[in-house]
Amino acid sequence: MKSQVVTFLIKCPDQKGLVAKITNFFFEKGFNILSCQQYVNSIEDTYFMRVRLNADGTNITKTELENSFLELAQPLQFSWSVNYGDKKQNVAIMVSHTSHNLYDLLERSKEGRLNCNVKMVISNHDKLRNIAEMFGIPFYYLPVTKETKLAQESQVIELLDSNEIDLVIMARYMQILSSYFINHYPERIINIHHSFLPAFQGADPYKKAYERGVKLIGATAHYATEDLDEGPIIEQDVKPVTHESTPTTLKRIGADIEKLVLARAVKCHLNHQIIVSGNRAIVFPEAGE
Amino acid sequence: MKSQVVTFLIKCPDQKGLVAKITNFFFEKGFNILSCQQYVNSIEDTYFMRVRLNADGTNITKTELENSFLELAQPLQFSWSVNYGDKKQNVAIMVSHTSHNLYDLLERSKEGRLNCNVKMVISNHDKLRNIAEMFGIPFYYLPVTKETKLAQESQVIELLDSNEIDLVIMARYMQILSSYFINHYPERIINIHHSFLPAFQGADPYKKAYERGVKLIGATAHYATEDLDEGPIIEQDVKPVTHESTPTTLKRIGADIEKLVLARAVKCHLNHQIIVSGNRAIVFPEAGE
Amino acid sequence: MKSQVVTFLIKCPDQKGLVAKITNFFFEKGFNILSCQQYVNSIEDTYFMRVRLNADGTNITKTELENSFLELAQPLQFSWSVNYGDKKQNVAIMVSHTSHNLYDLLERSKEGRLNCNVKMVISNHDKLRNIAEMFGIPFYYLPVTKETKLAQESQVIELLDSNEIDLVIMARYMQILSSYFINHYPERIINIHHSFLPAFQGADPYKKAYERGVKLIGATAHYATEDLDEGPIIEQDVKPVTHESTPTTLKRIGADIEKLVLARAVKCHLNHQIIVSGNRAIVFPEAGE
Amino acid sequence: MKSQVVTFLIKCPDQKGLVAKITNFFFEKGFNILSCQQYVNSIEDTYFMRVRLNADGTNITKTELENSFLELAQPLQFSWSVNYGDKKQNVAIMVSHTSHNLYDLLERSKEGRLNCNVKMVISNHDKLRNIAEMFGIPFYYLPVTKETKLAQESQVIELLDSNEIDLVIMARYMQILSSYFINHYPERIINIHHSFLPAFQGADPYKKAYERGVKLIGATAHYATEDLDEGPIIEQDVKPVTHESTPTTLKRIGADIEKLVLARAVKCHLNHQIIVSGNRAIVFPEAGE
Repeated sequence: MKSQVVTFLIKCPDQKGLVAKITNFFFEKGFNILSCQQYVNSIEDTYFMRVRLNADGTNITKTELENSFLELAQPLQFSWSVNYGDKKQNVAIMVSHTSHNLYDLLERSKEGRLNCNVKMVISNHDKLRNIAEMFGIPFYYLPVTKETKLAQESQVIELLDSNEIDLVIMARYMQILSSYFINHYPERIINIHHSFLPAFQGADPYKKAYERGVKLIGATAHYATEDLDEGPIIEQDVKPVTHESTPTTLKRIGADIEKLVLARAVKCHLNHQIIVSGNRAIVFPEAGE
Repeated sequence: MKSQVVTFLIKCPDQKGLVAKITNFFFEKGFNILSCQQYVNSIEDTYFMRVRLNADGTNITKTELENSFLELAQPLQFSWSVNYGDKKQNVAIMVSHTSHNLYDLLERSKEGRLNCNVKMVISNHDKLRNIAEMFGIPFYYLPVTKETKLAQESQVIELLDSNEIDLVIMARYMQILSSYFINHYPERIINIHHSFLPAFQGADPYKKAYERGVKLIGATAHYATEDLDEGPIIEQDVKPVTHESTPTTLKRIGADIEKLVLARAVKCHLNHQIIVSGNRAIVFPEAGE
Repeated sequence: MKSQVVTFLIKCPDQKGLVAKITNFFFEKGFNILSCQQYVNSIEDTYFMRVRLNADGTNITKTELENSFLELAQPLQFSWSVNYGDKKQNVAIMVSHTSHNLYDLLERSKEGRLNCNVKMVISNHDKLRNIAEMFGIPFYYLPVTKETKLAQESQVIELLDSNEIDLVIMARYMQILSSYFINHYPERIINIHHSFLPAFQGADPYKKAYERGVKLIGATAHYATEDLDEGPIIEQDVKPVTHESTPTTLKRIGADIEKLVLARAVKCHLNHQIIVSGNRAIVFPEAGE
Repeated sequence: MKSQVVTFLIKCPDQKGLVAKITNFFFEKGFNILSCQQYVNSIEDTYFMRVRLNADGTNITKTELENSFLELAQPLQFSWSVNYGDKKQNVAIMVSHTSHNLYDLLERSKEGRLNCNVKMVISNHDKLRNIAEMFGIPFYYLPVTKETKLAQESQVIELLDSNEIDLVIMARYMQILSSYFINHYPERIINIHHSFLPAFQGADPYKKAYERGVKLIGATAHYATEDLDEGPIIEQDVKPVTHESTPTTLKRIGADIEKLVLARAVKCHLNHQIIVSGNRAIVFPEAGE
């Protein structure tokens, strides 16, 4: 594990002594604690922790570490996961017609600003093929109709699974996914919605925003769940607008918000900053990373 | 009219030559045009204009001006209003328990940062009396129950009308007003709602925001209409929050947003910057004012 | 001129009747005024106007229009320019090592979100060649040393002039241009500086920002003038940061601000929204465009 | 110490095992750790920690706690402080002519939104006396001239010291304090400067902002040090502005930023969220407080 940053995400019932017990555990195993972030939800009496470790001072193996940790974890009722930072996550991007999020994600990935391998772009339209090709990423055109929906989803799932995709990014993929699909990748599908949810769920949020005369528009990145636009929110942002904006102008202004919001959310996910709790996403900030 | 700033607000079907015709009219009457702002809604083919005039170069009377203007306005189907800036508007503030908006409005008014006379504070609770008294503003305690609602509203209306109130500010007045009341003061009641509408309409928006796990909270100032929290939006703002915030913390963070949003909306109204069109508020920015 | 949007930018001493005279002029020539924006600088008694016209109702030629307008303009001492929207402007992008602004501008241009022809990318390093090539844009590698500076600038000027470049974008071109170069393209070179000017002028602003412990970082797009980082500011933005950020993190966070700020500034320039007055840039907002 | 929130602030050279050692210490003494926040400055190899403890499970006395803690602190070279939350801090507000910050601080304090006792308002002008009196706070009018500067400062110091003032807030006190005064209250004087420092240090920042044509204005709250406007920055914010704003308008817009920035900085200080390190202020966010 030398030279690796090991990240533990922990959730458990709140109780006295947690931080001491957990940090002691890692200290005794010879780890250097790079950062240790906590959140106590006092309404639900739940404790959340993100610990980042440097493994340079220890010879422990992954199996030994995990077995030891289990002994700590079980009596304290931890839900937990660990990432060893030893392999980049595989990402698939799903799109339809809209190009701005795709460009942005591919550029960030190519320039090393997103820590992942974009393995493929999947679309129900052939329109954005040239963008994937510019960046040398395989593009799969899988059209979909009401009738072929389940069959197309099976094709998508096969693609994702055979490529060992860790994260699916719906970068303006304008199709509603089936429950089966969604539940196949729990907390592993991130969607961008082009409004400041819960306002303007569903279709045409910019048109609705115009009609409602709002003075700001926004975007929301969230984990996809069975309930459309209802999943745990990872990131949101807005920008002020005036009466001058038509739905078309709002769409243009919104594109820049969508890009930033989705990229930030994906970065937090890839960086193991997120613990989902019910319908809320606990998103720890970067800690000197 | 010497030394006065005269403001015309105009709405009409869009057509060629409007700005030339209108500005010519004022130029020929001897006015100096301080600013002239337009908005064309090309979806509804509607034209909106706000003109601010300096009357120093003319001896025309108000009646002459308005009669002349009517001749221009009728064939072009103007809806219009004019304000001569010769008297401060009378304002009533309605509150319940929450003090931050009240303090803020009274301070701004006292320090000359809101161009109005706050004539009274009306509340269904006695709690904030001391604040009104600190600022030397009459405080009317008019408690309300389900049974006495209409009677209490009649008392309020009487107070407002006998004091020639031009604008009613609902500064966290936690009562739903009757249609009769609302329609008695069309486009003359401004309400502050403690969420970024249309998200979290109705009661307890901060609790709902916590439960939905949103990453920003906000406030919305709008004209009150019969449909609760559905009136034309004048001003909105938001602030980022994290999972750390409880409903109580959100309430505290939100208070600062509410203060600014309501104060800005009231200023725009008092300054004749707003034309309402359907459910949208056209809010012209200040023009060197 | 049919189907074109004609834009006039006017600056003159303030005087009574300007808006009436100017809008009348265009009305009488048969133009439809799409928007008419004004700004009066009452400190310097100067008047600024941006008028957008639809030429569908007129058969006037450009020469006739300009000759007629001159008769209006001269007695009123107008500085003015007109654009007929009939040809896209030619743009050159200058870069060094940093790629994020280049990607962003090329993407926007390719996707039709920036109304221009990017004719070339010029760099003193060969590093970003592949990005230009991805987008099919000619890339010129013109290295520079202290000794070859003037010679290299001559090469650049020749490239720009022979390609009839209308706008030069310094998208993190980390060289100080000579006065000769700068003055060759007055108000036609836009630079992005990676701080919220006038804070942190000169080199290494993110390092300075870290050392000063500021709680926000930003970026500034401005016209290049002889005084480094002192030219008229077109657009600025900032983002909150915390003590957690190292100079490296600030650089990464700043990249997203730089992209948006430069793109917005370029858009305003290409869209004829800017009038420079002394060291201030009057930037009219879009008007239903 | 029952029912109290005890807050430790610690700074020391970075080294392995710090979080485990410190949290263990408190766990063994019977404290419940409410929150534990860290920051590692890897450039200077320095470690910072803020720990909040609930003392309900322990009978330890303050002296015992501090003596024990010293044994931990000395070998690890801690700089540290502890606050027991058992008495409200005493605050003095210094003002000149400008009222908005004073109103805001007095309102927040009165309404329980700032955890302190405002013991007095001190001014070199008599103008704002009525505001202090509205809120029932003693007002000291201590005029100052070049000649009487040191004498006046002595009077101020006597007032502050005899009232056991913990924090001095310069809420637009437009006098430069002597080094003697400043050094008498290290990290205990917070000043609000009406620009986004380090831009526009010194006098008349809004005039300078107008002349420089910046597209945003701001405010900065910092600890006062001998170097004017150079002290550690606690909080900053900005707001976009346009060319329309005169210095007077900027002043008005800026007032709202100044209020929020100063109030937030004071809250962080009173809440023991700040550790100063050189010229940088480490400001921990609230942790579920």
